[in-house]
Amino acid sequence: MINVAVAGLGYWGPNLVRNFNACADTTVVRLCDTDPVRLGAIRRQYPNATCTTSFAEVVDDPTVDAVAIATPVSTHYELARSVLEAGKHVLVEKPLAGSVADAERLVALAKHVRRVLMVDHVFVHSPSVQKMAELIQSGEVGDVLFIDSVRINLGLMQHDVNVLWDLAPHDVSIIDHLIGRPPRSVVALGSSHGGLEDVAYLHLDYGDKLLASVHVNWLSPVKVRYFLVGGSRRSLLYDELNFSERVKVYDRGVDVSNDPEGIRQVLISYRSGDVFSPRLDGKEPLSKLVEHFVDCIAGRAVPISSGEHGLRVVRVLDAAQRSLGHGGARVTL
Amino acid sequence: MINVAVAGLGYWGPNLVRNFNACADTTVVRLCDTDPVRLGAIRRQYPNATCTTSFAEVVDDPTVDAVAIATPVSTHYELARSVLEAGKHVLVEKPLAGSVADAERLVALAKHVRRVLMVDHVFVHSPSVQKMAELIQSGEVGDVLFIDSVRINLGLMQHDVNVLWDLAPHDVSIIDHLIGRPPRSVVALGSSHGGLEDVAYLHLDYGDKLLASVHVNWLSPVKVRYFLVGGSRRSLLYDELNFSERVKVYDRGVDVSNDPEGIRQVLISYRSGDVFSPRLDGKEPLSKLVEHFVDCIAGRAVPISSGEHGLRVVRVLDAAQRSLGHGGARVTL
Amino acid sequence: MINVAVAGLGYWGPNLVRNFNACADTTVVRLCDTDPVRLGAIRRQYPNATCTTSFAEVVDDPTVDAVAIATPVSTHYELARSVLEAGKHVLVEKPLAGSVADAERLVALAKHVRRVLMVDHVFVHSPSVQKMAELIQSGEVGDVLFIDSVRINLGLMQHDVNVLWDLAPHDVSIIDHLIGRPPRSVVALGSSHGGLEDVAYLHLDYGDKLLASVHVNWLSPVKVRYFLVGGSRRSLLYDELNFSERVKVYDRGVDVSNDPEGIRQVLISYRSGDVFSPRLDGKEPLSKLVEHFVDCIAGRAVPISSGEHGLRVVRVLDAAQRSLGHGGARVTL
Amino acid sequence: MINVAVAGLGYWGPNLVRNFNACADTTVVRLCDTDPVRLGAIRRQYPNATCTTSFAEVVDDPTVDAVAIATPVSTHYELARSVLEAGKHVLVEKPLAGSVADAERLVALAKHVRRVLMVDHVFVHSPSVQKMAELIQSGEVGDVLFIDSVRINLGLMQHDVNVLWDLAPHDVSIIDHLIGRPPRSVVALGSSHGGLEDVAYLHLDYGDKLLASVHVNWLSPVKVRYFLVGGSRRSLLYDELNFSERVKVYDRGVDVSNDPEGIRQVLISYRSGDVFSPRLDGKEPLSKLVEHFVDCIAGRAVPISSGEHGLRVVRVLDAAQRSLGHGGARVTL
Repeated sequence: MINVAVAGLGYWGPNLVRNFNACADTTVVRLCDTDPVRLGAIRRQYPNATCTTSFAEVVDDPTVDAVAIATPVSTHYELARSVLEAGKHVLVEKPLAGSVADAERLVALAKHVRRVLMVDHVFVHSPSVQKMAELIQSGEVGDVLFIDSVRINLGLMQHDVNVLWDLAPHDVSIIDHLIGRPPRSVVALGSSHGGLEDVAYLHLDYGDKLLASVHVNWLSPVKVRYFLVGGSRRSLLYDELNFSERVKVYDRGVDVSNDPEGIRQVLISYRSGDVFSPRLDGKEPLSKLVEHFVDCIAGRAVPISSGEHGLRVVRVLDAAQRSLGHGGARVTL
Repeated sequence: MINVAVAGLGYWGPNLVRNFNACADTTVVRLCDTDPVRLGAIRRQYPNATCTTSFAEVVDDPTVDAVAIATPVSTHYELARSVLEAGKHVLVEKPLAGSVADAERLVALAKHVRRVLMVDHVFVHSPSVQKMAELIQSGEVGDVLFIDSVRINLGLMQHDVNVLWDLAPHDVSIIDHLIGRPPRSVVALGSSHGGLEDVAYLHLDYGDKLLASVHVNWLSPVKVRYFLVGGSRRSLLYDELNFSERVKVYDRGVDVSNDPEGIRQVLISYRSGDVFSPRLDGKEPLSKLVEHFVDCIAGRAVPISSGEHGLRVVRVLDAAQRSLGHGGARVTL
Repeated sequence: MINVAVAGLGYWGPNLVRNFNACADTTVVRLCDTDPVRLGAIRRQYPNATCTTSFAEVVDDPTVDAVAIATPVSTHYELARSVLEAGKHVLVEKPLAGSVADAERLVALAKHVRRVLMVDHVFVHSPSVQKMAELIQSGEVGDVLFIDSVRINLGLMQHDVNVLWDLAPHDVSIIDHLIGRPPRSVVALGSSHGGLEDVAYLHLDYGDKLLASVHVNWLSPVKVRYFLVGGSRRSLLYDELNFSERVKVYDRGVDVSNDPEGIRQVLISYRSGDVFSPRLDGKEPLSKLVEHFVDCIAGRAVPISSGEHGLRVVRVLDAAQRSLGHGGARVTL
Repeated sequence: MINVAVAGLGYWGPNLVRNFNACADTTVVRLCDTDPVRLGAIRRQYPNATCTTSFAEVVDDPTVDAVAIATPVSTHYELARSVLEAGKHVLVEKPLAGSVADAERLVALAKHVRRVLMVDHVFVHSPSVQKMAELIQSGEVGDVLFIDSVRINLGLMQHDVNVLWDLAPHDVSIIDHLIGRPPRSVVALGSSHGGLEDVAYLHLDYGDKLLASVHVNWLSPVKVRYFLVGGSRRSLLYDELNFSERVKVYDRGVDVSNDPEGIRQVLISYRSGDVFSPRLDGKEPLSKLVEHFVDCIAGRAVPISSGEHGLRVVRVLDAAQRSLGHGGARVTL
């Protein structure tokens, strides 16, 4: 049995508590938040977990094996560092850290103390993304021609970072997981109306004519989620909001011939292609991530959303932030 | 009765013929295409229109009052020029011309010969766009904070221009109609897999923190159309594919306060705002454009999608093409 | 070349004219309607067709080979009879006639004069229904366990018949085409708020535990169309309004075992079944029907929506009307 | 603080436990199920609740103030009776009982012992149904012309009752809440393929030309939920699966004039009516029901889904079952 502490009980933390509480191999022994009101609210639901406003207490508790951190981004580095230095395993909410340097230090430290450092890039653990990865790796999709992701809704629940650092980590981690190599350069544009950027566009150049684009937005009156992968043999649509058919596979791809007539022929046949929606495991991604975290601690698995993965995501976000700061100038990684 | 000739009977031309044939004030007297097969096919349906492969015949025919041009973009300038020089009115398929210089010449010529020069920016004549313009001009929407338009589907039916010149004219003309001033600068990115760019993103900076973005794509396995207008009081969603509720008005906007708590409050109330979908005239936009063209010829109206409007659209497309050519470098208009 | 006359130019007639005009093997030589205004409107679009308010003229014209009748239901019998007696082929708008006796007379007469009698049950000619028929006949679907069809929208455009006779012919003809045998009995319920029934439910008992139900409604504020076929191996959903995926095939069916645990197991696996949407020919069903009518006249084909098919549909509607008149009493065919 | 026990921890029970655990005024002190495995699973998540396989223990426990019963329908009467006789308040899962007689006895007993008897007709407590009731009572909707409810999906999770008793209680309770009077008669049809009826249609005649129809189905490959209220002034659509716009109000209704032309005019204007989707409280209906149950125990409120309401629902289900048993014969209440 692994004793877990959860720090940060705002929007996301309670989901971590619920899943660690439901997992047969973990016990939630400590809950931590600087806000006593939040602690009081959760204490009633989990009477057996010790509640505290002091993170030091959590780190100093020898009975705690692992800590899940769901606090503001600016605190990730300090808190995760102290957890690792105390010889405990750590699960950090995305993004791993607010700077590349801090993310690099955490990765190095985890390696040094031989503890599990995992980032809560929850979508990477979803059956939908796993299925897309499988379809790309198996060659079903063929060459990936473009990726386009839209993640827009009313937001601004998190005030310590802008929409880029709040929402784009999801898309960047999914793309990193699917493509398996870092982009060569990044162009990002956006605008802010309340202090922090609330609208942003990222364009990741992966070379080989592969452009991956992401639109994140806190001001959209409608919630839109779609993730498109255009392939030379088949194309994929992942729509998180389509509960019954989250992933669709579109038969036939685009023959990248230079003969326009040829292209037209292919496209016309493409237009009439079949659509296939594979069956997906309905399990909650976060519960799968929690089980995976347990396996990694037990040495039965290697982290999918590892510290290195989280670091690659932070590198892209950092480059995007610099591009944003220079009005969309291209930033090379 | 206005005698009309239609040149170019590929994908769009037959729609022009059908609408001019249905309009009570116009008669289709001549049909022109370089392809005899196309002429043969349409001759059977419109036996009373004289068919020809010679555009010169059309221009020289004194009984022809106006010509609608639906030929490849590269031919727009030459054909429209000859029509205007022959003292006839002209409706040109979008975009007005392949270069800013040609578009400027056509606008000047039309002014000189005092004939109607109209561009077939058909969406500007749709009840949906008219309604959005009304809601913005009346102040209902408040400050426009962002515009985001997605127009993606399987395409590549037109081979003389890339996806930017093929699809983006729709979005740029709608945005120009709604905002009523040209953007200050443009950033465009894209990629090509069959010779011509088949994926492109445009970012138009209108100043005052207003960024208007457009995604056009010929390789998408799914057809997606949405046009979002984020406002400080209300926001709009125009979804061409939602036949029963094409335009939705989302109550409440974003208070652009710098106090994050304040923003959160506003956003939370926003989240629970009403949604309103106004009744819209169900008429086919192209039939309204045809009637409007007739009114302009009769001097009863001034063109909405005028030559000047078409020129502004070409200026944006030209700037976007140059940005595309320089890997997304910002191009100032 | 087959010379065609079209009688009845209200809502549907013009679609027949357009398709017969576009068909390479037919020429529209005569247009007939009792309303001169309608004739005037269509004359401009089809200047070469002779317009008349006298149906007798059409019947007496020796150059007319076939007549398409899109007039009110109450007139179908008399008009179709005179066409057949004049030795011409006839396409009758659905339903074939207002009574079983009239429908039987037309079927007998057509057989006697050896002319084609076809009913415009247009959906039976749609690629979606053809695909469903293929999937059922091939055994893919297994045993058909239930059929449920919903066809509701704002209506009341047709005043000579109620919603049962106006909309249900579509569903009854599709079901007849798929099941290939008449129901044993019918139960129908409904209500009327403006004289004619505007809401109606049909329940057709086909024996073998197969119940086929239809909901037709003129008062629905939303347009809903779905046609469900529940099968023991696979199930089908035909949604006319889902343009990109009109027919969906749901993998796995229900094992009609009596062991509840067994059923639960099967259903759980079913729940996680794949979804497949086959490619469909995009052609307009009415154009396919017109070509099929031509083939039947030329003796190259036997009518799919034949007089006999139309008669079976009228028998069901007549039984349903009697059930409706007796508050839902079961009527045996 | 009210001490609550929950009996029956299958599909629904855990939701009751979660909501009673989250409610500030209630404490879950006892959990009861005949299956030790289920008890073991829930014990870990709620370590402070005493678990037992003996319902008698729960009833005999003087510290228990109220019991929520989520056991099979056949046991509702016996269990609820013993709870009331022990002087405790009771919340019974829908339907209240398996027979009219048992439901009547429970209502009488609760009145006699002066304890709260509430039925878990959860939808009646949803913001969507509350809003529809408000729109009907305020006269916004005008005369209710028809109600049509579809509740179909893959099911058969509950084996002690058929689809009629499993799913239709939801629709019948909503209709009862909206109309506020019992139907005059019921017609029900259905079929069974695995022992129990898995497809059923209910038609409730409320007089005044008001027909309310319900389709419940365990074999549907797709999950469909819609609840339509057709009104003479406005019409309502409640779609539980449309998270962002659960209730839509369609402007204008049907003038029940007998002049067909008049109707057509009205309907044409109706067709172009506005659509309005009011803001709704996003709270989970079950949490509102739990709070309402607390208020009723405290004497601060009178039960919305009272025993009498639950009895009216059982009367309709019983009549429908008898109609089903007689092949759709009309059964008068």
